[in-house]
Amino acid sequence: MGFSLSTESVVSIDSFSREDLQNLIDLAKEFKEKDRKGERYSVDLRDKVLVHAFFEPSTRTRLSFERAMKELGGDVFGFDDPGKTSLKKGESLLMTIKMLEAYHANALVMRHPKAGSVQRVADICNIPVINAGDGPNEHPTQAFLDLFTLNEIHPGIDGIHIGFVGDLKYGRTVRSNIVALPKFDDVVIHWAAHDAFAMPDDLVKLAEDRGIKIFRCDSVDDVLKESEVCYTTRPQKERVVGRYDIAEIAKMVENYKITIDLIRRANPDVRIMHPLPIDTNTEEIEDAVTFSDNQYYLAQAENGIFVRKALLFALLGGIEHRVFEPYVNSALSESNGNLELYRRSGRRKKDGRIIADIEDGFVIDHITLGEGSDLAKELEIDKYRLHILAGLDSTSYDRKEVIKLSNVLGEKDIRRVVLISPEATFSIVSGGKVVYKFRALLCENEACITQDVLEGVPRNFFYDGHEIRCRYCKSPIEPKVKHEGELKRYVKSLPAFE
Amino acid sequence: MGFSLSTESVVSIDSFSREDLQNLIDLAKEFKEKDRKGERYSVDLRDKVLVHAFFEPSTRTRLSFERAMKELGGDVFGFDDPGKTSLKKGESLLMTIKMLEAYHANALVMRHPKAGSVQRVADICNIPVINAGDGPNEHPTQAFLDLFTLNEIHPGIDGIHIGFVGDLKYGRTVRSNIVALPKFDDVVIHWAAHDAFAMPDDLVKLAEDRGIKIFRCDSVDDVLKESEVCYTTRPQKERVVGRYDIAEIAKMVENYKITIDLIRRANPDVRIMHPLPIDTNTEEIEDAVTFSDNQYYLAQAENGIFVRKALLFALLGGIEHRVFEPYVNSALSESNGNLELYRRSGRRKKDGRIIADIEDGFVIDHITLGEGSDLAKELEIDKYRLHILAGLDSTSYDRKEVIKLSNVLGEKDIRRVVLISPEATFSIVSGGKVVYKFRALLCENEACITQDVLEGVPRNFFYDGHEIRCRYCKSPIEPKVKHEGELKRYVKSLPAFE
Amino acid sequence: MGFSLSTESVVSIDSFSREDLQNLIDLAKEFKEKDRKGERYSVDLRDKVLVHAFFEPSTRTRLSFERAMKELGGDVFGFDDPGKTSLKKGESLLMTIKMLEAYHANALVMRHPKAGSVQRVADICNIPVINAGDGPNEHPTQAFLDLFTLNEIHPGIDGIHIGFVGDLKYGRTVRSNIVALPKFDDVVIHWAAHDAFAMPDDLVKLAEDRGIKIFRCDSVDDVLKESEVCYTTRPQKERVVGRYDIAEIAKMVENYKITIDLIRRANPDVRIMHPLPIDTNTEEIEDAVTFSDNQYYLAQAENGIFVRKALLFALLGGIEHRVFEPYVNSALSESNGNLELYRRSGRRKKDGRIIADIEDGFVIDHITLGEGSDLAKELEIDKYRLHILAGLDSTSYDRKEVIKLSNVLGEKDIRRVVLISPEATFSIVSGGKVVYKFRALLCENEACITQDVLEGVPRNFFYDGHEIRCRYCKSPIEPKVKHEGELKRYVKSLPAFE
Repeated sequence: MGFSLSTESVVSIDSFSREDLQNLIDLAKEFKEKDRKGERYSVDLRDKVLVHAFFEPSTRTRLSFERAMKELGGDVFGFDDPGKTSLKKGESLLMTIKMLEAYHANALVMRHPKAGSVQRVADICNIPVINAGDGPNEHPTQAFLDLFTLNEIHPGIDGIHIGFVGDLKYGRTVRSNIVALPKFDDVVIHWAAHDAFAMPDDLVKLAEDRGIKIFRCDSVDDVLKESEVCYTTRPQKERVVGRYDIAEIAKMVENYKITIDLIRRANPDVRIMHPLPIDTNTEEIEDAVTFSDNQYYLAQAENGIFVRKALLFALLGGIEHRVFEPYVNSALSESNGNLELYRRSGRRKKDGRIIADIEDGFVIDHITLGEGSDLAKELEIDKYRLHILAGLDSTSYDRKEVIKLSNVLGEKDIRRVVLISPEATFSIVSGGKVVYKFRALLCENEACITQDVLEGVPRNFFYDGHEIRCRYCKSPIEPKVKHEGELKRYVKSLPAFE
Repeated sequence: MGFSLSTESVVSIDSFSREDLQNLIDLAKEFKEKDRKGERYSVDLRDKVLVHAFFEPSTRTRLSFERAMKELGGDVFGFDDPGKTSLKKGESLLMTIKMLEAYHANALVMRHPKAGSVQRVADICNIPVINAGDGPNEHPTQAFLDLFTLNEIHPGIDGIHIGFVGDLKYGRTVRSNIVALPKFDDVVIHWAAHDAFAMPDDLVKLAEDRGIKIFRCDSVDDVLKESEVCYTTRPQKERVVGRYDIAEIAKMVENYKITIDLIRRANPDVRIMHPLPIDTNTEEIEDAVTFSDNQYYLAQAENGIFVRKALLFALLGGIEHRVFEPYVNSALSESNGNLELYRRSGRRKKDGRIIADIEDGFVIDHITLGEGSDLAKELEIDKYRLHILAGLDSTSYDRKEVIKLSNVLGEKDIRRVVLISPEATFSIVSGGKVVYKFRALLCENEACITQDVLEGVPRNFFYDGHEIRCRYCKSPIEPKVKHEGELKRYVKSLPAFE
Repeated sequence: MGFSLSTESVVSIDSFSREDLQNLIDLAKEFKEKDRKGERYSVDLRDKVLVHAFFEPSTRTRLSFERAMKELGGDVFGFDDPGKTSLKKGESLLMTIKMLEAYHANALVMRHPKAGSVQRVADICNIPVINAGDGPNEHPTQAFLDLFTLNEIHPGIDGIHIGFVGDLKYGRTVRSNIVALPKFDDVVIHWAAHDAFAMPDDLVKLAEDRGIKIFRCDSVDDVLKESEVCYTTRPQKERVVGRYDIAEIAKMVENYKITIDLIRRANPDVRIMHPLPIDTNTEEIEDAVTFSDNQYYLAQAENGIFVRKALLFALLGGIEHRVFEPYVNSALSESNGNLELYRRSGRRKKDGRIIADIEDGFVIDHITLGEGSDLAKELEIDKYRLHILAGLDSTSYDRKEVIKLSNVLGEKDIRRVVLISPEATFSIVSGGKVVYKFRALLCENEACITQDVLEGVPRNFFYDGHEIRCRYCKSPIEPKVKHEGELKRYVKSLPAFE
């Protein structure tokens, strides 16, 4: 028993190879078999401590990790939902997490409302970090336990026929599964959902591109007929209120409900999975199903323990004592999100006019028209010794707003500018000349941790061969440039994501 | 050391025999004696886990169980007051509890705002369940620790003279004690309370019927004079606000207060018990009593640990490893609360008229006058293809409202009907004939878990030899029938409560 | 390894001798060295339990104590922020704490909003009590870990040059450090702060009186130049809102900020300490400092674990099994805060007039003019059979208000009187004569636990050789007396604080 994962932290399901997943499933199976023989407890992780950093409430995931850790002989500590307890508002994620690491945590499991937050934490921590949900983004351990459960129903998973019903648009669970399943061969998916909850085209395309056969069905009936197992989720009605009338919403729920009659008619052998909780208001699964042999969600819930034991064992099983390292690598504060702009001869002259009245300083140009004074307020411009906030009107310029400062803006203020005025350019002026001119790139995903100015997460990007993506939330960005060469040079400077 | 209880779960004090109680007291005494010799910790329950499911907040009871479990070498996990933390609203009690069981709990201790909730959970769980308060209903482990403490003051309890002062009407603690005490011989009770908080007649009668001598006194003075030990509780002033004026309420508190002067005058040897907390606003016990030798409530608090150790040891001490069983017995979804109605020849004709226009379907008749349209709304009647919602006026009928449906109503909808219209009758029509006609019985206790439609707890009753009672909250019901035979046949079909 | 502290509880840093502090530092150092060698865990405190009583939320301090206890093989239980969870409002601190002791706690760590609350608890508990913050008063374990960290930077501490920057007025951390540092020799302090956050004169005087050289600097620059280590705290802007305009407040923060540029310019070797959390809004320390070698606050955070291990080991390491003692010493309910007033012949006559119409009872005199009827209401005077509430106007009296009662007021009501009317006098009348006349002294610190009437903490004072101080919060009081002899006699009766 025992193996190593190819990643040290568990941030995204996508970084797990098929071999990783297979190893995880096999190890979880070993734990389940031992449990069946009465060997539930061990001392494998004695003197190891898992810290819970749940910035959003969680009962299920948190308790499941707690039991897994305790059954392996380890301990847990931490917090759940600090908004309601005591974590001082205003502390950065970085400092909160390093504090927990300083308290001798050996691994960290984290849930946070912002996409990319877990990647940030994995970067700054010297201990393994497990993603238990980063906003709308990912929840990889739920996907692991789903795979383990599918493997129980259809050993090997290859060739499995799975149904998906319910909300295939807003739930991160379905997304994680669709990303994970192509790692296995010949998977066939049938799904049905109201248009409001239909599987997004990009997700369908991703599945198809990676070799999955995926079919949309007209009814739950048809899905059940074609599937060994049907994965059901709650339609998040609250997401579509206002866009549909009440009768239509009732139909959304009613027509995509799993009932015992449907099962008996369509496929009496089908297994029903659900990430839980089932909503008694929506009743996406009828009570009677829970009392039937088709119900597989309670087995699935227990499997969460075995899968998390396997994961914790893989991450911590062979680790030696590690001393807390109080210094934080300064590379982690560095942004690679500055797009350097060429200054051609023609523009140099214009620059000359803009910078005419400053010898050394900083100029913000290409401010979105009309945003100049808001920006000045946001930057507490007094503090920064504003030289001029001007609307120029000349033959060589359109009316524009320019902010000139006698000092260089810090990283947080640069971000404040870009949030208001995404296409602003920044020039550093020295000895009366522009020595460096750049556009500051910022991830455009509103849920991304990098958009939270106070957190101070650097603006970092990588190039995946096709697109420039945010290091944290993995969303693609498309910088608008006037000169193709600027972008090419920038892309060339970017790392591939490890 | 060691014994088995005659029940597997601890739902109600009433299901404990005197032998059970004596065994529990003796075992708790052993634990206390060991503690006095420095043997506080053991490994008796190593690798056993108690789960806390506190749907209402609790500090005292929860911590007491936690310490008891830990002192026996076991572990605890779970939640306290999920409304403020994270348990998804809308999940049924059944699913929440089965999830906790899936996480390898060996026993469950539960507090919940609804009466009967713990009985429901004990039915569906394969692990022992301990009631730590189900709404206004019971709190048996408080009664156990009170008995243990009484046994310390008056060994054997038989022949003890106990006083009760304070709120003898609203507190579940007093009720539990009055139910438990008749299991011992020659118990004498003296009590005093303002009329607003007087011991209810049914409780007095229950005590007397079971052989207790019970006397009402005019003053606390008199109670103290007659008692070895006086059990005091906080008058729940908030329950009587509006019914009494402020001066009267002040008198309620003032006249039934335990003061050191009263004790010295009336009975300097009396012991004062209190389930805690004492309210510093009400001051039902004066501070000075806490500093006196008459104070026995801190010893009583510590006794909670010993009694809970005894209980946990009795429930879990000899239990082997038990594998989680993910299937839920379908019998647990079945109701026995349908009172079958005879269709006599005269009514058959009338039925004939009501069902005239449907071949197959479902008819709701005897709807409370004026409630028909509310019912239709509640049932989202569109969904159920309403055929007619009519006010008939003929010679053979009073004006009445009838709902006709082309499909059979589910269990939850039947309950929605009964909550609005308790005497409604339901007819299943097949081939133009009424094949089955029934009244759906529902517990009339508003605090009962079965009145919560979304929970989907089946309507179940038993017959105790005198009355039909709700399986969950144990309240009696009296179905109104026109024909004695209907009721007789129904009672005969009911189980006795095991 | 191992030593005993000279105090059994940890209420105030001031009661720790230099030897205590040195021993604590040395032991913490041993724990840190062992940790570096991989010996993090022990069974030193096996079967010992620490209870958390956090009446105000805490994540950092609570988790740090939890880890320390667990690393020593002990266990923890308790509550955090009961206002949001479940502790019954209205229970006295005394009863809550005794309940936790009854649940077999071996030591108690406590945070509470009221000054002096921890002293009260230490008085009534038979187990060691650790102050984790009593309102604005003290937080000694933070001071311990700061000292340990200073000792790491400057072994022995003697002769250290420390800087203080930020909020030196409102933070209890700085206060605790200034009290602790004079226990070492030749300490030099340089500090800088905006006037609104300047170190209070009494604190400066205290430091100087105890042999510290202390200098105010004009700028952070100057502080950094003169210091090996700079202790920074967050300016509590919210304390000065309204007294300063926004621009001024921005300057307060901006001018006293630690930036990496400042450090490089002034003193590249300086270490920056901070009690954490750092506020990302205030940014009292710039992000870049966190990524530099000057950052010492994460090492400081980890040191909290070692120091708390040392403290817990010192308090609990050698303690034998202790049985819970349910009785509370009645001495703990007794006040020594009654200033007996001489009744000289002249006043006796006047007393005679005031008590003219009562034979046995209680008179409240010298009520603050106009407060009489409020007092009557507060005392629910009906209840106390008010005899007269009068405004007298005669030659021998100014207009005054007097309350006459036929019974003696209890301790809580006496406190209610004094809170409204601090100079009231109380006379006990027996057989038509004043047999005892006194002023009831009450601590004047509004944050003090003794001002909370319902808590019923007795009014207790001690004499430190210079001043009369409250036993709980240690604030000085100055009773106004007409006759010097009354005060002298009172002071003579007071204990010195042990």
